[in-house]
Amino acid sequence: MLMTYAKTKLQEEKVFKDPVHRYIHVRDQVIWDLVKTREFQRLRRIKQLGTTYLVFHGAEHSRFNHSLGVYEIVRRIVDDVFKGRKEWDDSERLLVLCSALLHDLGHGPFSHAFENVFETDHEYFTRQILLGDTEVNAVLRRVADDFPEKVAQVIEKTYPNELVVSLISSQIDADRMDYLQRDAYYTGVSYGHFDMERIMRVMRPRANGVVIKESGMHAVEHYIMSRYQMYLQIYFHPVSRSAEVVLNHILKRVKVLCKNNYPFKYEPTPFLSFFRGNVTLEDYIALDESIMLAYFQFWMGEDDEILRDLCRRFVNRKLFQYTNLNPYKQPEVYAQLQRLFLQAGIDPEYYLVHDSTSDLPYDFYRPGIEGTKKPIYLLMQDGMQRELSEESQIVEAIAGRIKVDHKVYYPEELFTDERIPAALRNEIKQLIEEA
Amino acid sequence: MLMTYAKTKLQEEKVFKDPVHRYIHVRDQVIWDLVKTREFQRLRRIKQLGTTYLVFHGAEHSRFNHSLGVYEIVRRIVDDVFKGRKEWDDSERLLVLCSALLHDLGHGPFSHAFENVFETDHEYFTRQILLGDTEVNAVLRRVADDFPEKVAQVIEKTYPNELVVSLISSQIDADRMDYLQRDAYYTGVSYGHFDMERIMRVMRPRANGVVIKESGMHAVEHYIMSRYQMYLQIYFHPVSRSAEVVLNHILKRVKVLCKNNYPFKYEPTPFLSFFRGNVTLEDYIALDESIMLAYFQFWMGEDDEILRDLCRRFVNRKLFQYTNLNPYKQPEVYAQLQRLFLQAGIDPEYYLVHDSTSDLPYDFYRPGIEGTKKPIYLLMQDGMQRELSEESQIVEAIAGRIKVDHKVYYPEELFTDERIPAALRNEIKQLIEEA
Amino acid sequence: MLMTYAKTKLQEEKVFKDPVHRYIHVRDQVIWDLVKTREFQRLRRIKQLGTTYLVFHGAEHSRFNHSLGVYEIVRRIVDDVFKGRKEWDDSERLLVLCSALLHDLGHGPFSHAFENVFETDHEYFTRQILLGDTEVNAVLRRVADDFPEKVAQVIEKTYPNELVVSLISSQIDADRMDYLQRDAYYTGVSYGHFDMERIMRVMRPRANGVVIKESGMHAVEHYIMSRYQMYLQIYFHPVSRSAEVVLNHILKRVKVLCKNNYPFKYEPTPFLSFFRGNVTLEDYIALDESIMLAYFQFWMGEDDEILRDLCRRFVNRKLFQYTNLNPYKQPEVYAQLQRLFLQAGIDPEYYLVHDSTSDLPYDFYRPGIEGTKKPIYLLMQDGMQRELSEESQIVEAIAGRIKVDHKVYYPEELFTDERIPAALRNEIKQLIEEA
Amino acid sequence: MLMTYAKTKLQEEKVFKDPVHRYIHVRDQVIWDLVKTREFQRLRRIKQLGTTYLVFHGAEHSRFNHSLGVYEIVRRIVDDVFKGRKEWDDSERLLVLCSALLHDLGHGPFSHAFENVFETDHEYFTRQILLGDTEVNAVLRRVADDFPEKVAQVIEKTYPNELVVSLISSQIDADRMDYLQRDAYYTGVSYGHFDMERIMRVMRPRANGVVIKESGMHAVEHYIMSRYQMYLQIYFHPVSRSAEVVLNHILKRVKVLCKNNYPFKYEPTPFLSFFRGNVTLEDYIALDESIMLAYFQFWMGEDDEILRDLCRRFVNRKLFQYTNLNPYKQPEVYAQLQRLFLQAGIDPEYYLVHDSTSDLPYDFYRPGIEGTKKPIYLLMQDGMQRELSEESQIVEAIAGRIKVDHKVYYPEELFTDERIPAALRNEIKQLIEEA
Repeated sequence: MLMTYAKTKLQEEKVFKDPVHRYIHVRDQVIWDLVKTREFQRLRRIKQLGTTYLVFHGAEHSRFNHSLGVYEIVRRIVDDVFKGRKEWDDSERLLVLCSALLHDLGHGPFSHAFENVFETDHEYFTRQILLGDTEVNAVLRRVADDFPEKVAQVIEKTYPNELVVSLISSQIDADRMDYLQRDAYYTGVSYGHFDMERIMRVMRPRANGVVIKESGMHAVEHYIMSRYQMYLQIYFHPVSRSAEVVLNHILKRVKVLCKNNYPFKYEPTPFLSFFRGNVTLEDYIALDESIMLAYFQFWMGEDDEILRDLCRRFVNRKLFQYTNLNPYKQPEVYAQLQRLFLQAGIDPEYYLVHDSTSDLPYDFYRPGIEGTKKPIYLLMQDGMQRELSEESQIVEAIAGRIKVDHKVYYPEELFTDERIPAALRNEIKQLIEEA
Repeated sequence: MLMTYAKTKLQEEKVFKDPVHRYIHVRDQVIWDLVKTREFQRLRRIKQLGTTYLVFHGAEHSRFNHSLGVYEIVRRIVDDVFKGRKEWDDSERLLVLCSALLHDLGHGPFSHAFENVFETDHEYFTRQILLGDTEVNAVLRRVADDFPEKVAQVIEKTYPNELVVSLISSQIDADRMDYLQRDAYYTGVSYGHFDMERIMRVMRPRANGVVIKESGMHAVEHYIMSRYQMYLQIYFHPVSRSAEVVLNHILKRVKVLCKNNYPFKYEPTPFLSFFRGNVTLEDYIALDESIMLAYFQFWMGEDDEILRDLCRRFVNRKLFQYTNLNPYKQPEVYAQLQRLFLQAGIDPEYYLVHDSTSDLPYDFYRPGIEGTKKPIYLLMQDGMQRELSEESQIVEAIAGRIKVDHKVYYPEELFTDERIPAALRNEIKQLIEEA
Repeated sequence: MLMTYAKTKLQEEKVFKDPVHRYIHVRDQVIWDLVKTREFQRLRRIKQLGTTYLVFHGAEHSRFNHSLGVYEIVRRIVDDVFKGRKEWDDSERLLVLCSALLHDLGHGPFSHAFENVFETDHEYFTRQILLGDTEVNAVLRRVADDFPEKVAQVIEKTYPNELVVSLISSQIDADRMDYLQRDAYYTGVSYGHFDMERIMRVMRPRANGVVIKESGMHAVEHYIMSRYQMYLQIYFHPVSRSAEVVLNHILKRVKVLCKNNYPFKYEPTPFLSFFRGNVTLEDYIALDESIMLAYFQFWMGEDDEILRDLCRRFVNRKLFQYTNLNPYKQPEVYAQLQRLFLQAGIDPEYYLVHDSTSDLPYDFYRPGIEGTKKPIYLLMQDGMQRELSEESQIVEAIAGRIKVDHKVYYPEELFTDERIPAALRNEIKQLIEEA
Repeated sequence: MLMTYAKTKLQEEKVFKDPVHRYIHVRDQVIWDLVKTREFQRLRRIKQLGTTYLVFHGAEHSRFNHSLGVYEIVRRIVDDVFKGRKEWDDSERLLVLCSALLHDLGHGPFSHAFENVFETDHEYFTRQILLGDTEVNAVLRRVADDFPEKVAQVIEKTYPNELVVSLISSQIDADRMDYLQRDAYYTGVSYGHFDMERIMRVMRPRANGVVIKESGMHAVEHYIMSRYQMYLQIYFHPVSRSAEVVLNHILKRVKVLCKNNYPFKYEPTPFLSFFRGNVTLEDYIALDESIMLAYFQFWMGEDDEILRDLCRRFVNRKLFQYTNLNPYKQPEVYAQLQRLFLQAGIDPEYYLVHDSTSDLPYDFYRPGIEGTKKPIYLLMQDGMQRELSEESQIVEAIAGRIKVDHKVYYPEELFTDERIPAALRNEIKQLIEEA
């Protein structure tokens, strides 16, 4: 009976029109039902690239978009490439499809800043949504009692079948292949394009994960290069980081104000449990970017000057300026700037912010470093496997080469703020320019 | 001095990366300053295609996006095609660029539904923002005292120079050329692509507006065909209209509840002045789609069953089903359905909704019909002008051919709602299916 | 044993990189072997669009290119859409794949001009190559003794299974779907793009041929529009027709010279049997565009002034100018021009050439006209079939609307040729300009 | 008067539709006249990628195609980016446009193989065509007496203005930017795409050549990566090299036969002066790929077995197989194979051919190596210039990293040729497989 549901096909295949993969094809009733759940629909209200749309205006796409794409890539690998190969156990098919679709389910609004301030963890909430009292869980449980748990394990990389895990989570998984292409498409940059069709054709299932036939090495090199460029050009863009910094400090300020029993005109009701550390699943699901943006706008009318100012900055995109300065290397410069800011009546806690790219979720190709994703193995003609950077000069040359970039962010309006003595402004300016 | 500002060029050209036009180029200080205003940045929080993203998931792009695109097209026409031609007065250049950029400034969240219920008018608010106490007005006034008024006139089509008006507003203006391509790009459909570069090359300035050299007729035909397909496939998509219907009735319900002094748990503060008809400019600007979506989510917890249900439907995308039924042609069927709904305890006012495509902002090519946009004129080799549909068999054949489409929307859950007697449900079902 | 060959799969799928379909996939040994035959490889030396590359320089692609594309489309329809449907007999699969691949096998160099002058017929030669002593025949015969004959019947549209025939030859067959997209890609125009993936998805096999689910009507409309535009803009381009006219008259001249025993410096050996009407299959296969172009260059050194001049014109692209003149409507003007040309010492037979688009292989959508291809049928929800133009206003409006276009081609150098009396030149010029 | 011609603009801009750059724009009469010359039209009959179309069937585009593209890129750099900058002398504009258009003018059919065997040099013939009695020369001379010589110098890199030279010939010149994109477009691979528009925007004219603003470094890195991939995947493709090897040995064989007074059935008239070393300009211009292919087909009927076989191989694409073997490293294996081939009655001179990628025109990024093109300089914010690989980790890492690849080509039919003793065949096979 439950078996039946797992194998139920839609009477007629359904498709979603997708600009990246042309169409997303759905034949399984389970997938169709999952897409319709409120928890999955919620991903429409969370942007795939957080604050990046403030720099690349095209990047307004949501995680809903991306999640369908990851599903489609896995579906094509499994149905068009793996099917019929002895190393592939087709009874894992539905599990890997569901995991692909749901892998981002626990992401919150502006995930990175959010998790940073609230010390939440999207992986934890993914598990909660999968196993809790949710529409998603109801669908998954119809497949089998232990099915929600299995999906959670695949997404958490603890599922015993490494091959299944590696489709969703490795250095060349469906997640990355989708987001590189999708983010390139929506921003309009030319970097993120690589030959995914070629890569899929040379993927082979092995016990330890997906491996790549040696003949596809150059296509994989191209993918690694695309990835590298996307990190440098898009994901680490300094202005997008500026927006991130402002956002981060809005939340930080609200947290402080709450702690200090600040009398909000607009009580941050949906955030309270986050500050108090007693978040329920329902609280979490209820929070999305529309709510966050709405509150930022409400708070533009608060009396607290810092909160009001930061909210206005974010909403109206009056972001911070930045300078290259590494406080670890030039601690005295940074300390001096902090002093001068205080002297000028500007709280450096909120207005002189150090940010480094290592703060970002960063895993450009680095085999062998603890905690990184499974590296890429090539399947040689003799059947042996070799790690990519051993074979590819290019990959070996660039693996792990991205330097951490340190910047300090500040409001450039201070240079023309006549309430600050001109001499002080000049001193700050000079110090910043020389940094 | 004021002159100076109008002619000020940025020290270095700035660009926005754009997926449709590759780059948006800005050299004028005025344009750069306008983009940075809070009123223009607000367009980031209003979707270009309203509820369409619930059908075509890629269509999450904003009016900010589109407005930059319209500006870029006009810039290219004026600087690359018109410049140096005697029929073109280059002193109108800045005016037409500003008008292009700002033409959508007054749009509200989910414009169509919003205006429908609140009886507001985005053209009215565009004028308010241009002339009121706004950042946009401050920038425009620096150009010249009467400059904001001139921009308003161009957008309202009352500016005396018809050529300037026609660049923004005619059957083949920059607005349409941008949105067809942009909406096609984001949805991923293949319809909206036509040869804009060719069309721009054959545009010629004339006193009565932009005309098209005869040699470009086929490119224009292709554009008209693209437009036709986009209307049928995207803009009139029945499921997107379903979302529109739900949204519409949420607002309608809130209005009724307000009038009846319903005790909201979540007071609809930002909406109150709209219901009371005393909207200030600040109220209007403050409303965007994040606020609207936030309230829909708050109201999912209201006691009023209709409001709660409709909000849940919209937020979780449990939209209405539809059937082809024209109440004007089959009034008795419609009336009978209304009766049966009432009998089943379902308010037909909110749950049996007639919608026709003529409700949508519709102006597929129809020369000669009062109130439509200026038709397309071909510039013949002898210098005469001829209206497009006189010359093009294809356009003549399809001009004005789109039929009004009538549908009635309803919640299909009623068919399985056990609280309603089975016989009644069957009767409703049969009536709907036979319609 | 023969059965075995028909079903033999390559050990590993082979692909051809293709810019239109990304990849062409081959799994069948038979297909792989056919591609390798000399008769199929010969198609590399025959351009898909004849003389069009002289106007659209990108259009240098060959029939080899296109033939692989048609095969790929049919493969995808049969394997991805039809497979498993009861109306589709999968035992016809290999037959239809081979027919798709080989449908253009008998085309000669610059087919249209060639057949016109030599009164050959590419369909006749396709049959000869399929059934004669060729490498293609050897491969096909290994499948079954009657297999070559079956392939010939499918291509000739006499095969009893109309469904199989219609995949290759109908108003919406794989041939057209490939060439529209391919010719658009290589010329770089934006017209030929339609949503083939959508169309394939709504194709359904029926006894009388492929039909289209009603829900796909708009995609088919878009395809018809694309086709219309491609005809007007590319296939009927007047300058490409000028090249065709010159080419045509080179061959005509050589034929006349041969008949008159003109002493060629460069004997037209490969053409002789064509003039004498005793062409062998080997003669036919031996002729391709490289040979034709080589001879045109050799003949640039012949003494016969007309042959020499026409060859120089073609090789160096000094084509004829044209004027809109229909000799059937203005016989006296045309006759007068002929007289004046003679008077000026220019042979009107070769230098005042009437050409009409009806000379071109033309079958824009015209249901119900004798001899045209099978029209497009929509499959309605009730299972009935309706001819497209009955349902689609757009298609109905344009079906059969392309007017025949008449032009007269001539060398414009005559206007500045001082060997011709100025008065005579003026008279010709005036007559042409007034036409 | 001559000045006048140089500055003459077409009454109306002309365009060529181009799939890579959308349109090629021509406003200068000189450019228009050059395109119409027979020497430029001849480039239509020479493929851009020689034998590559035998592997990537889409790559049938000609040097005509590419030459227009290089012109268009230079035109855009000069007119859109450099114009008005003090470091750019606009009086060089026409010179650099003509040089861009004509830079490949002297290429022969299947250039690489051709030059290899005939010891000709396309740069020499470019000069001959520019300065000799040609239509091109006549056009250029109308500009100024010394203009043809100047164009020759720019193309030969001896023109004193290094900036002008560098637009056509440097590590990031218009030539490369066009061919990477064009070859990628026609083959259909995804590698060759980089952000040319961005690169053009950051190009700055300096006395020592075009430099790149530091802010564009990542776009240049991407370009270098694209180049790397195109070399590995397309230009060095082993099967394309196989075709090159066969072609090469056809010409070599004809040369030997000529020397030995072999009685050709089809006298190689157009080639004779090449063998005799007394080639006239007219002989050179007269030779193109149609003539070459025609002769290959004629020679398929010669008595000389080697010539006949090699021609059949090329025409019908029965190319050589290959094995990885470096005769310099394994001289004894190679010598042993030569002996065994002789023993089997197969002439190793023609049928056991060593080929290495270093034979190909190869200049992947290698700053500082004698004879390579000018490296890429970045223009730092302080106005200093730095060589790219000093700044870019990625480029530094891969610069000069492509290994020379050695292969030995042979006919695999020998393994099944029953005229050769089985033991001998086995010995050869084993030796090859172990290599």
